[in-house]
Amino acid sequence: MKLVRYGQSGREKPGIVDEDGAIRDLSAHVTDIAGHALTAEGLAAIAAIPTASLPVVTDPGRYGPCVSGTGKFICVGLNYADHAAETGSAIPEEPILFMKATSAITGPNDNVIIPRRSKRTDWEVELGVVIGDEARYVSEADALDHVAGYCLINDVSEREFQAERGGQWTKGKSADSFGPIGPWMVTRDEIVDPQALKMWLSVDGVMRQNGSTKTMIFGVAFLVHYISQFMSLQPGDIISTGTPPGVGLGMKPPVFLLAGQTIRLGIEGLGEQSQLTVDAA
Amino acid sequence: MKLVRYGQSGREKPGIVDEDGAIRDLSAHVTDIAGHALTAEGLAAIAAIPTASLPVVTDPGRYGPCVSGTGKFICVGLNYADHAAETGSAIPEEPILFMKATSAITGPNDNVIIPRRSKRTDWEVELGVVIGDEARYVSEADALDHVAGYCLINDVSEREFQAERGGQWTKGKSADSFGPIGPWMVTRDEIVDPQALKMWLSVDGVMRQNGSTKTMIFGVAFLVHYISQFMSLQPGDIISTGTPPGVGLGMKPPVFLLAGQTIRLGIEGLGEQSQLTVDAA
Repeated sequence: MKLVRYGQSGREKPGIVDEDGAIRDLSAHVTDIAGHALTAEGLAAIAAIPTASLPVVTDPGRYGPCVSGTGKFICVGLNYADHAAETGSAIPEEPILFMKATSAITGPNDNVIIPRRSKRTDWEVELGVVIGDEARYVSEADALDHVAGYCLINDVSEREFQAERGGQWTKGKSADSFGPIGPWMVTRDEIVDPQALKMWLSVDGVMRQNGSTKTMIFGVAFLVHYISQFMSLQPGDIISTGTPPGVGLGMKPPVFLLAGQTIRLGIEGLGEQSQLTVDAA
Repeated sequence: MKLVRYGQSGREKPGIVDEDGAIRDLSAHVTDIAGHALTAEGLAAIAAIPTASLPVVTDPGRYGPCVSGTGKFICVGLNYADHAAETGSAIPEEPILFMKATSAITGPNDNVIIPRRSKRTDWEVELGVVIGDEARYVSEADALDHVAGYCLINDVSEREFQAERGGQWTKGKSADSFGPIGPWMVTRDEIVDPQALKMWLSVDGVMRQNGSTKTMIFGVAFLVHYISQFMSLQPGDIISTGTPPGVGLGMKPPVFLLAGQTIRLGIEGLGEQSQLTVDAA
């Protein structure tokens, strides 16, 4: 299933994408794509609804973030060997974890807001993992049972805030609009191998990232297992699993975003995003 | 006002502490101590209710976390000069920010769970700042207008996970139960000077931390201003403002928590917490 949230920011309704690509309204069945609806039980209940019985949404308008009620937005740093190399970093021995503010989450095609005093706002196409059932000390073998599905994420980053303003990366990862997610959450059963998905990102039509999840250092199952040793994972939590090469920081010379540019990105099977960059008011 | 949440975990009700120290049930007036109830408008509405008209809760049972709906649990590292010294760290030039998982939040007297494979679980008494009205690029002069109130926090920390497992501190700060908050949120009007509050922490009756918020490097107003340059702050977000000297890591030799110990802590005007340590199941 492809689950979506559509409508005005803060008032999104839950929906499902049918075989013809149309959105069907799920709001008579679930209040939101969040919490219990993301558990195995919740997803089974949605799957049991005949899609053709649901009202077609003729004009969905805006796509919202594809998941709501996210308690934690956990990111994995330097999780592609060639990306680590382009940033001049060693390949990590264990996953590097940091948090993105949940207030950074926006819809897949909303504007990306360049923060005040930013000079080095950058892009990162990433595979997002949405937690379904709570995970606490899970084994790698059982880890995927706790995954509701996958989504496309742009892990927008301010490199000076991240690395030169006092120590911890969260400072450069958390501005409003720095976390577009969606357009859909695709349930796990539809992604045969999360470690074999092509991914790409362009800025103003110039291809900047062109990779595949097959070059991840730590794969999805290991990450869910690993993170669950340090904190419990709850329904709606999102893990953003790192980016392949091609970020602005890695170019020679480095290239960063300016207002008025268009970022487009996609992952095989997970749809596409398109964002216009604007300066913070 | 002292606002509280009481009852079984996950089913807490909102309350207010009256002049005699009894809890009065607020649930006919607000659904929770969260979101809009924490804004200036929401707090004014609660303040307008005659406390004597509210039902007394004869047996409140457990205290829950004093605030709900926390989207971000932001911590400030090394924010007391003498604590930075005891950990062998330089005094930061700018605030060090990191995130604690919101799933770490527990009630003030709930058990502190020592994670599996932990050898270095430590304590940190901290002043918590609860955001009321949204803050985005606010000046230091206006910053406190965005603060709903204050609370006591134990920023429980696993030092090996924090510092020796791959880079970012969030890994050692986020285990379930690592964020007891409460017993109350005391509204800002009742705390004349947040930079002059005595604070202390003991383990099994031995005083370990005994300080004051007056030795903070970056004060509350500056922190709210500063953080709001990097991310927006929303109602219910919590800033934990750092710890004074006396953590286990700073002792010679270092001392860490074992199961079966009792941690007690307090801040002047903000009440006390008492936690029993237990091993993770």
